[in-house]
Amino acid sequence: MNKPLQKVDRHDLALIAKGSAILGAGGGGDPYIGRLMVQQILGEQHSVDVVQIDDLHNDALILPIAMMGAPQVTQEKFPSGKEIPKLIEMMERLLQQKVEAILCIEAGGLNSTIPFIAAAQMGLPIVDADAMGRAFPELQMVTLTLGGMDATPMAIVDDKGNAATVEAISNVWSEKIARALTIEMGGGAMVSLYPIIAGPSAPYLIKGSLSMAHRMGQILDANGGATAHILAEAYNGLVLFTGRVRDVERRSDGGFTRGELILEGHEQFVGKKLNLSFQNEFLAARIDHEYVATTPDLITLLDANTGVPVTTELVKYGLSVNVLGLPCAPIWQSNEAIEIVGPRYFGIDADYQPLYRDR
Amino acid sequence: MNKPLQKVDRHDLALIAKGSAILGAGGGGDPYIGRLMVQQILGEQHSVDVVQIDDLHNDALILPIAMMGAPQVTQEKFPSGKEIPKLIEMMERLLQQKVEAILCIEAGGLNSTIPFIAAAQMGLPIVDADAMGRAFPELQMVTLTLGGMDATPMAIVDDKGNAATVEAISNVWSEKIARALTIEMGGGAMVSLYPIIAGPSAPYLIKGSLSMAHRMGQILDANGGATAHILAEAYNGLVLFTGRVRDVERRSDGGFTRGELILEGHEQFVGKKLNLSFQNEFLAARIDHEYVATTPDLITLLDANTGVPVTTELVKYGLSVNVLGLPCAPIWQSNEAIEIVGPRYFGIDADYQPLYRDR
Repeated sequence: MNKPLQKVDRHDLALIAKGSAILGAGGGGDPYIGRLMVQQILGEQHSVDVVQIDDLHNDALILPIAMMGAPQVTQEKFPSGKEIPKLIEMMERLLQQKVEAILCIEAGGLNSTIPFIAAAQMGLPIVDADAMGRAFPELQMVTLTLGGMDATPMAIVDDKGNAATVEAISNVWSEKIARALTIEMGGGAMVSLYPIIAGPSAPYLIKGSLSMAHRMGQILDANGGATAHILAEAYNGLVLFTGRVRDVERRSDGGFTRGELILEGHEQFVGKKLNLSFQNEFLAARIDHEYVATTPDLITLLDANTGVPVTTELVKYGLSVNVLGLPCAPIWQSNEAIEIVGPRYFGIDADYQPLYRDR
Repeated sequence: MNKPLQKVDRHDLALIAKGSAILGAGGGGDPYIGRLMVQQILGEQHSVDVVQIDDLHNDALILPIAMMGAPQVTQEKFPSGKEIPKLIEMMERLLQQKVEAILCIEAGGLNSTIPFIAAAQMGLPIVDADAMGRAFPELQMVTLTLGGMDATPMAIVDDKGNAATVEAISNVWSEKIARALTIEMGGGAMVSLYPIIAGPSAPYLIKGSLSMAHRMGQILDANGGATAHILAEAYNGLVLFTGRVRDVERRSDGGFTRGELILEGHEQFVGKKLNLSFQNEFLAARIDHEYVATTPDLITLLDANTGVPVTTELVKYGLSVNVLGLPCAPIWQSNEAIEIVGPRYFGIDADYQPLYRDR
């Protein structure tokens, strides 16, 4: 329907930051910070080439780059410019292969933009894809896990200059070990993980997600407060709720931002109450105790006046929002996938019901 | 006075395990477990060559091997036999140099014996030296820190097969990061750190410490309950207290075994009370609130009936013990060293007073 991106300059990147924050489902970092970070490095004169995964040769090494940690912390830690070359050098040394393209591991305001710093700094293209089609809180929660691919070897560096590498026996162990490192390094760190080879990984990636984020950013810029309804229409989603934030319970816990929101309904939702639980990302939405959407489907909050997505760490008492539900990528709907990213993994006592069944 | 060791078989190693547990000052691991571990690998037919640091060529790479973690945990985790070759392979890859000798980083019932597993498995000699002359709880607390040498690159592996490497900006950061990894890996892990080159490191090592531990083991075997008094005489030390354990407060906390003992005096100490505080190792001894010995001098507990050293994780209510004070290696007495390993570092409100001043 829309032509895929071929080149991204700072103006495109501002659109991608906004659109990927919608896909970030409350997590993946603040798009405003993501854009500031990139603008430091990606000036007027720079642009980054975007490639489709199928345009790379089969053996090409692709390195995802991301910030890991509680969003409350990562948004205060700007990369210094030294972290990324160090990460890439460590990974190339471990893998004994030169990297040919950069990838966003997830969609999110920060984690869809930081890889552009890597691409610009290293003079590499970025792949128009990611490994979640949204953001998830734990690092084993990628489509690549479904493909039997390993999170490690991974490299991790902090803003002070400390560095570590990990080789773990499973992606859940990678998560545990990397989370402990991230916490010790101050709550947030830059990582490169899931080094992948183009050919075998291609069937598992969520293709075209940068182009999709870019398009969502354009819709947001054109439609402001009406964005939630237009996106619901365009992407087979649903405006789950419209209302005002009445309670925010949020804590930093085990390297995550966890908590719950309570919203009081407006418009056709007057008299109703929505509960939203989150672990970095929104995990489940209940209206008067009935689940209306759960992970892995996307639950995202858009400011009712501006359409700007609101992350779990920035949402505040009193804000008027639309709660947008969007269907997850189909790969997340298998039984195997639901075990990894479904509601019960997060301790939510509900079976996954795809969003469209509720319509 | 005594000839240095040249070769160690399992019988020598049993003596080293006991003697190094005396030098371990309550930490460094249970000598009984250390001996069991080594006997699994170092059978009747095997022996390990012992070399003096000055006999190695100047550029020889020496790798220390150790168990890191709370003694309560490490004593339950036997290395599988795969950890050490993996550690050494990781270190050789990081350093791009072949290892020529193994070193004990500290003296202790486990950490003076486990390096013999490494030496036997790899067919390498072990250096008759260590980097503490005792055991200390944190990894920056080595004489090599005083020589400006780095703890990293380090490698760390667990019994499940997870592995990590660390490159830190300081030895205190190495401690923080390695401790977080150790905790996440289950409380104990095998590490190789402080890779050193023979020539520049030689002035900082505590030389002859394996031979000294071996000699202490012989004294213990020959003298049983009289060992504390004989060692005090032979090594310029002091029997600080004789009595019975009346209270043990011990907890696993932040990757360490911490706590306090209270002893009730016997013989010339009747009517007196000794308080011993520890963090893996014994840190300070007070008689009726007056400090009689503090770190970095060695405070060690010997069973009053058998002379066998008692570690902080095994000491029990009711046990009759001699509390032996031994002077630390002179390198630990500088102001710079006292900042790293003196009582105030551990939150003990006392200045370091060398043991001999109290005699």
